[in-house]
Amino acid sequence: MKALIITIGDEILIGQTIDTNSAWIGNKLNEIGIEIDQILSVRDREDAIIEALEFAINKRFPLVILTGGLGPTKDDITKKVLCKFFDTSLEMNAEILLKIESYFKARGRDILDTNRQQAALPKNCVILPNNLGTASGMLFEKDNSMVVSMPGVPYEMKGIFEEQLIPHLKSNFDLPAIYHKTIMFEGIGESFLAEKIKDWEESLNAEAIKIAYLPSPGVVKVRLTAMGNKMESLQEKVNRKAKELSALMPKFIFGEDDIKLEETISEILNNSGKTISTAESCTGGYIAHLLTSVAGSSNYFKGSIVSYANEVKENQLGVSSSDLENFGAVSKEVVEQMATGVRSRLKTDYAISTSGVAGPTGGTEVKPVGFVWIAIASKHQVISKKFQFEKDRARNIRRTAMSALNMLRREVENELSLSKA
Amino acid sequence: MKALIITIGDEILIGQTIDTNSAWIGNKLNEIGIEIDQILSVRDREDAIIEALEFAINKRFPLVILTGGLGPTKDDITKKVLCKFFDTSLEMNAEILLKIESYFKARGRDILDTNRQQAALPKNCVILPNNLGTASGMLFEKDNSMVVSMPGVPYEMKGIFEEQLIPHLKSNFDLPAIYHKTIMFEGIGESFLAEKIKDWEESLNAEAIKIAYLPSPGVVKVRLTAMGNKMESLQEKVNRKAKELSALMPKFIFGEDDIKLEETISEILNNSGKTISTAESCTGGYIAHLLTSVAGSSNYFKGSIVSYANEVKENQLGVSSSDLENFGAVSKEVVEQMATGVRSRLKTDYAISTSGVAGPTGGTEVKPVGFVWIAIASKHQVISKKFQFEKDRARNIRRTAMSALNMLRREVENELSLSKA
Repeated sequence: MKALIITIGDEILIGQTIDTNSAWIGNKLNEIGIEIDQILSVRDREDAIIEALEFAINKRFPLVILTGGLGPTKDDITKKVLCKFFDTSLEMNAEILLKIESYFKARGRDILDTNRQQAALPKNCVILPNNLGTASGMLFEKDNSMVVSMPGVPYEMKGIFEEQLIPHLKSNFDLPAIYHKTIMFEGIGESFLAEKIKDWEESLNAEAIKIAYLPSPGVVKVRLTAMGNKMESLQEKVNRKAKELSALMPKFIFGEDDIKLEETISEILNNSGKTISTAESCTGGYIAHLLTSVAGSSNYFKGSIVSYANEVKENQLGVSSSDLENFGAVSKEVVEQMATGVRSRLKTDYAISTSGVAGPTGGTEVKPVGFVWIAIASKHQVISKKFQFEKDRARNIRRTAMSALNMLRREVENELSLSKA
Repeated sequence: MKALIITIGDEILIGQTIDTNSAWIGNKLNEIGIEIDQILSVRDREDAIIEALEFAINKRFPLVILTGGLGPTKDDITKKVLCKFFDTSLEMNAEILLKIESYFKARGRDILDTNRQQAALPKNCVILPNNLGTASGMLFEKDNSMVVSMPGVPYEMKGIFEEQLIPHLKSNFDLPAIYHKTIMFEGIGESFLAEKIKDWEESLNAEAIKIAYLPSPGVVKVRLTAMGNKMESLQEKVNRKAKELSALMPKFIFGEDDIKLEETISEILNNSGKTISTAESCTGGYIAHLLTSVAGSSNYFKGSIVSYANEVKENQLGVSSSDLENFGAVSKEVVEQMATGVRSRLKTDYAISTSGVAGPTGGTEVKPVGFVWIAIASKHQVISKKFQFEKDRARNIRRTAMSALNMLRREVENELSLSKA
């Protein structure tokens, strides 16, 4: 079954807001066997919205999802336009009005007339109540299309989608089975990987499995997809081919199904009962942020010393001042002392440290922008490695963090397998 | 002048990749007076791409920008489809082949035949060389439409866009003037703000200025837009109305034109010569990451102690163990000691500290998920404030960081204005 997403809002077309809703909705619909065929983003204008709705109905999409333009301010016109398109009018919904009033009461905020007006809703639609905000979702039917309008605020849209819309879709549509598996690679480029697994890739045709390569800084995802009637047979063939792939390239795979590297590390550390700390210079706390973005990370993450200034490297991590002077902050000597320093001071099993030239300035001929040292300290040893990344500050921070987490993963896995042996 | 963006790639429709390219392109085109009228995302399929191209030509868009589907792997079919649509064929481009070969040589990587094939390009297009990767941009003309195809990797697309495409557009189109100004608010909700500035908003009609409210966690942006022939008169009227707005709501405005809070703080600290450190518990290094994401932050940011474990709060920040026991880690007493502790140990003028329940677990009746203390320490005083945020871990981390940076901004501005008085 095919669906169309229509996002409404000048802020998307002007580039002031990145449309994250469509990806989220696409992902969720895929899980229940609905494929997004197109995403269309249009302006906050009556003619543009009407034209998009006509396109949707003419193309006979069984499901059309609209987001945006339902806020309380004057630039939000979606509700008015939906009334016109579906030939209906607004009426005050007493139940929703109560919800909105109690929403404001609970937050101790004064309610305005514009807020109350959000309870004025089209007569001929199904209301999808919003438990996280004041703009309700609305569900219309026309010419065998179901048209759903939801607010653009991601957090509110997600609430309505999961609580209200999903049950509606499951009971209204006869959905096919679809199965995806994503295998996560690090430390290998997209084309090199494709070349290495060429024959295996050819063999997917016979099984009607689709493959896609999705590169991002430091990581390549390989996604396998199959669609059909019986979920069990789809799972069987996709998982079998995924296993073949894992056997071909064991060293470069860190996980499956869009797991993040920090989540892989969470699993490894939780299972082994080991703890971690970081000493960060060029990553400026980003590795600590990634680690602590995982719920439950307080089980294994004790803390971090972000030592941007050299005096902090000396005073808080015990880095030798003469080494700082002789070798510079971006050096094997300093990064290794940072790792051992934070490990002993924060009393953890492992420690990560980074020191590099993030850019855009501060590069020299010997140590250009993108030049980075990373170290991992454990009870047994300190290992360190240098990298030459790119010109862009944000990418350098990201790639340093991914490489550091990868080094940690390999080191912990190595030590755990040695201790078992 | 109106343009259409077409993004190509199943990964966008399936929700595995968020389309950040379109927002970036929309923003850049707006700056030179080209308005994006629609964004259309379609699948990696010949029929879908052809249909999108036909739509673009039929609707007579003078400019059509395609991204995606130009990689070296088999799922990338855009180049082949473009040849079919524009009735041409591929030929090996010797110059581009040399570029690709030297790209691999410079990185010490083996070149594969699939990489060489990226130099096979359509005969009847203008090549837009890619200096950051191996997939060239291509520019076609048909029925008064200019159709540009670029790779989907954001970093490569941006390189081609800025270096190659912008000069082409400026010399080929007679572009109107467009002027935006964005005013950044914090600490006030969208509808409350709209109510407060209602009369002023009415007065925009007479000047043909468009307004949009763009809320995100902790921040509301108000964007003013005017279009016309003479840039000076657009700037004059928009800036005049923006000044009126600033005069109406001085307390809640932290900047203009999409400046980030961390960039506002960078300006304030750079101008005043003051330094900053952070002691982070629930934000886990995220504030340090935001501060260090700004180039040149080493001028004023010395470092951070991320004290996730209580023992790190005691040993590295000097928090009293009896206060930790009596009041708990999430308390006024502890957060204030964290701020003074990191300020004295890292020897900075200001310090930020955070301690809270990020969730999803760890909440109690007295201190539920989303309950957070934030403190700011300076030479003169320590101020602290408690907040009750939400249920979502990522949003709690984000909102804590934004509120902490706001508290810092106000404190530094207050102290600077007092010292001047």
